[in-house]
Amino acid sequence: MAAKENGPKQEERRRTIIAGPTNPMVTPLLSDLYQFTMAYAYWKAGKHNERAVFDLYFRKNPFGGEYTVFAGLEECIRLIANFKFTDEDIAFIKTSLPKTCEDGFYNYLRGIDCSDVEVYAVPEGSVVFPKVPLLRVEGLIVVVQLLETSLLNLINYASLVATNAARHRFVAGKSKLLLEFGLRRAQGPDGGIGASRYSYLGGFDATSNVEAGRLFGIPLRGTHSHAFVSSFMSPDEIMDKSLPSRDGSSTCEDFVSLVQTWLSKIKWSQLLHGIFGETNQSELAAFTSYALAFPNNFLALVDTYDVMRSGIPNFCAVALALNDLGYKAAGIRLDSGDLAYLSCETRKFFHSIEQEFGVQDFGKMNITASNDLNEETLDSLNKEGHEIDAFGIGTYLVTCYAQAALGCVFKLVEINNQPRIKLSEDVSKVSIPCKKRCYRLYGKEGYPLVDIMMGENEPPPKVAERILCRHPFNESKRAYVVPQHVEELMKCYWPGSADKAREELPPLKEIRACCIKQLEQMRPDHMRRLNPTPYKVSVSAKLYDFIHFLWLNEAPVGELE
Amino acid sequence: MAAKENGPKQEERRRTIIAGPTNPMVTPLLSDLYQFTMAYAYWKAGKHNERAVFDLYFRKNPFGGEYTVFAGLEECIRLIANFKFTDEDIAFIKTSLPKTCEDGFYNYLRGIDCSDVEVYAVPEGSVVFPKVPLLRVEGLIVVVQLLETSLLNLINYASLVATNAARHRFVAGKSKLLLEFGLRRAQGPDGGIGASRYSYLGGFDATSNVEAGRLFGIPLRGTHSHAFVSSFMSPDEIMDKSLPSRDGSSTCEDFVSLVQTWLSKIKWSQLLHGIFGETNQSELAAFTSYALAFPNNFLALVDTYDVMRSGIPNFCAVALALNDLGYKAAGIRLDSGDLAYLSCETRKFFHSIEQEFGVQDFGKMNITASNDLNEETLDSLNKEGHEIDAFGIGTYLVTCYAQAALGCVFKLVEINNQPRIKLSEDVSKVSIPCKKRCYRLYGKEGYPLVDIMMGENEPPPKVAERILCRHPFNESKRAYVVPQHVEELMKCYWPGSADKAREELPPLKEIRACCIKQLEQMRPDHMRRLNPTPYKVSVSAKLYDFIHFLWLNEAPVGELE
Repeated sequence: MAAKENGPKQEERRRTIIAGPTNPMVTPLLSDLYQFTMAYAYWKAGKHNERAVFDLYFRKNPFGGEYTVFAGLEECIRLIANFKFTDEDIAFIKTSLPKTCEDGFYNYLRGIDCSDVEVYAVPEGSVVFPKVPLLRVEGLIVVVQLLETSLLNLINYASLVATNAARHRFVAGKSKLLLEFGLRRAQGPDGGIGASRYSYLGGFDATSNVEAGRLFGIPLRGTHSHAFVSSFMSPDEIMDKSLPSRDGSSTCEDFVSLVQTWLSKIKWSQLLHGIFGETNQSELAAFTSYALAFPNNFLALVDTYDVMRSGIPNFCAVALALNDLGYKAAGIRLDSGDLAYLSCETRKFFHSIEQEFGVQDFGKMNITASNDLNEETLDSLNKEGHEIDAFGIGTYLVTCYAQAALGCVFKLVEINNQPRIKLSEDVSKVSIPCKKRCYRLYGKEGYPLVDIMMGENEPPPKVAERILCRHPFNESKRAYVVPQHVEELMKCYWPGSADKAREELPPLKEIRACCIKQLEQMRPDHMRRLNPTPYKVSVSAKLYDFIHFLWLNEAPVGELE
Repeated sequence: MAAKENGPKQEERRRTIIAGPTNPMVTPLLSDLYQFTMAYAYWKAGKHNERAVFDLYFRKNPFGGEYTVFAGLEECIRLIANFKFTDEDIAFIKTSLPKTCEDGFYNYLRGIDCSDVEVYAVPEGSVVFPKVPLLRVEGLIVVVQLLETSLLNLINYASLVATNAARHRFVAGKSKLLLEFGLRRAQGPDGGIGASRYSYLGGFDATSNVEAGRLFGIPLRGTHSHAFVSSFMSPDEIMDKSLPSRDGSSTCEDFVSLVQTWLSKIKWSQLLHGIFGETNQSELAAFTSYALAFPNNFLALVDTYDVMRSGIPNFCAVALALNDLGYKAAGIRLDSGDLAYLSCETRKFFHSIEQEFGVQDFGKMNITASNDLNEETLDSLNKEGHEIDAFGIGTYLVTCYAQAALGCVFKLVEINNQPRIKLSEDVSKVSIPCKKRCYRLYGKEGYPLVDIMMGENEPPPKVAERILCRHPFNESKRAYVVPQHVEELMKCYWPGSADKAREELPPLKEIRACCIKQLEQMRPDHMRRLNPTPYKVSVSAKLYDFIHFLWLNEAPVGELE
């Protein structure tokens, strides 16, 4: 946490230290028109100086699960730190509102920024649950309302895709390499860039997206496509056939012939004889060329023609030729067909090569699989048994195909120190009023037990002291908890005044590490795919009573007819 | 079409006239790493000067339908027109590739642009079908491969959401107003901006997204939220109660009292007596304030507390008070509950007001509905009967919840004038080789009958001349067609040399009009939601023979064991 400083110095630091949003299209105009019509109506009614508190939260975990990973905070703070209308913005807003709107309003808008706004938030990468605020935003009602749409936009997808990534990691297991390959199918350019960033945050290892690698330092992965393979006709077209050995001590003048020799050796070897006949020559040419370009990083896509009858033998011939010169091939990628079966057959083939030609560790060669993978296919591959080391996951991960939206909402919970509630016939849509503080209570075994929301001025829960946790809406659901550890969930990421400290925004790698650690700390039954146990979210006894007092106060009394 | 010009002048025009991509994050680095590893391997193998032709197409219409709207072309051309690596880009690529890569490659990359690339495309907003190329991109293989990922990214989501919008329009009917309200739930900032742009293209009327309104001139809509309603306590807090009449001839000094008087009149009126008791006072205050701010545009969200017992009576009281001063209220919005039932009850209430108080057209007051609407709910509202005039559609539209991705692919069809085919055990994944031209053949009734793909040098189909159309892969599916009208599908949007003309990129409103017209021209059975008839896509007899010759040539002969 930053050291406390006072006055304009701190103010200046706060202003200059935070860069603008990663996507320059994130401006104060990235908002719904009604935020501006409301702003005008507040201003016109003289309510624009009223101080309001809004909670940002979701009502239901995505993907049929019982947890969510919170992401998108850094971009929210970047927006807030730089929130200011330009003259062009104002001019456009003026054309968008009725001509009757008074000019004074536009002068007022021109002066708005977020220096008086206070944002408390759960740290990015946290495991979070329904109803508990992810952000608590306090400030002049006009300003806070103007932030609503963009905050929701920046958090909804980020959290959804981070959660999706965490779920894929959970099924794949810790030891597998997970690669995000979704840019081409993502919902627009920064749908792709966001997917790479937040998949990494949620536990992926690398991405194919070069721009995301540049922006966020995410490790990059990639080799070649089917088009590369079919762009070659035959090994005859390879002009420069020479390859120096890895240690530079010698040079093979005709690497193409060396490959051909190995292909023939494999074909007629004892263990592999009869498994394949003529392999595809354009594929062989492509693999050979790729190896000449990347002798230290030879990884081949083996399914352009026929995996077992062409791709794998061709790959092995090139890999063995490389081995002669001291290079170690990186592995293969499968992008179609029965991945479980093909990976097992491929592994057997690799083991036979190791055995027959005495090439150490050839059997352990990396096998990557891609092709419309998702949670379900990973799960069914696990059940069937496979030999895959790395998964390349695209469409289903980045578009969150199983559930394409997270429903975060932004609700008024207090105005001018008056708590507010939003009613609904659907109880799950009733909002929890009051400016709140939230805590996570841990049990004896180190697992989080329950989250509890309390009024801002209630004394926080204490370690080893019994506290009553109530379901916010269900009278009969309540439990005493004696926490072994108490963690306050929200921290100050943007202080409402210049003399308060704010949390630093950690680098992506730290957020990722924190997320992975939190996911591992959860009790396993909350995390399982099938019928997971809901994590408990509660309110204090005092807040419970207040919610229900306010509810009765606001709801009209019906008349049965 | 641009007039033909020659030499550097035309070249200069082409360079300067096309702005960069709308989203500045769309750069040549918005690509998969493997495009760069392949580029290096092509360069290293001396293949980088080979000329390749790629087709961009999809294999299956989305949403269980039988048509797709093509969108995203303008952004593709903006990318291509400005495609150039900066020194920073090159420096980053260098850190992303193995250290063994030679420096000559980076010099080569530095010199790359798209001046030699030729792009033919279907006009943006066209109705398109599986397998038929949307884009045909020809150029040096390295350059065209480097474009692959970003072209796919820019077209996949744009076409998906435009199609989704067209489908929503089809169900809603021509007479309804369709409003896109999805920014907060979209997949990232330009997921939201793209959704607004391409929903409008596909037939929506307006958006809530201010930034999209500014960028693309899309009409904007919006009023107020639930938070606005609950931010008020009671009409007592309204300070400035005066409202001049519409014609400026007089001023009502206490508009709040006028509203209260009307509320009481409605309550005790003959037709409405007993329907409601005490309405919510914070809601009444919010409506009154909103009307004071926007007397010409008063539209109220009526479901914060109780639609029929509070929202509608409060709205009517304010609307009648406005009416006294010569203003006409704009209508109401319903955002929860049984929309069919509530809209009918509301309509009845409005008619009773018209009848009881003799206010002309009050019964025709606009009713807008929102709240998780999608194709299915629109369809079921139609079946049930409703009184809704306008629909606000968000999450399901913008995230394409029913199918979150379109699977456009980019396949090599020719290199150095040699046709190439990509095989697959799944016939639907076999690519159609050759540089092609494509035509839409129209029948006597004016409907499109079939699309046909032909080799580049085949004579085009002629009006009134019989031509054989063959299914590309199914031998027995073929038909003779005598077209009444022949339309070439792809036009040149980016010429490979400076002396060729290119199609202009029309403004969004024109694209939208063209899209709506094309959708209306389709035979209705292709468009219906339930069991639509597939539109036929074919190849010429000559192309058919060539595909199958090439296929047999490339496929390995299996051996049954």
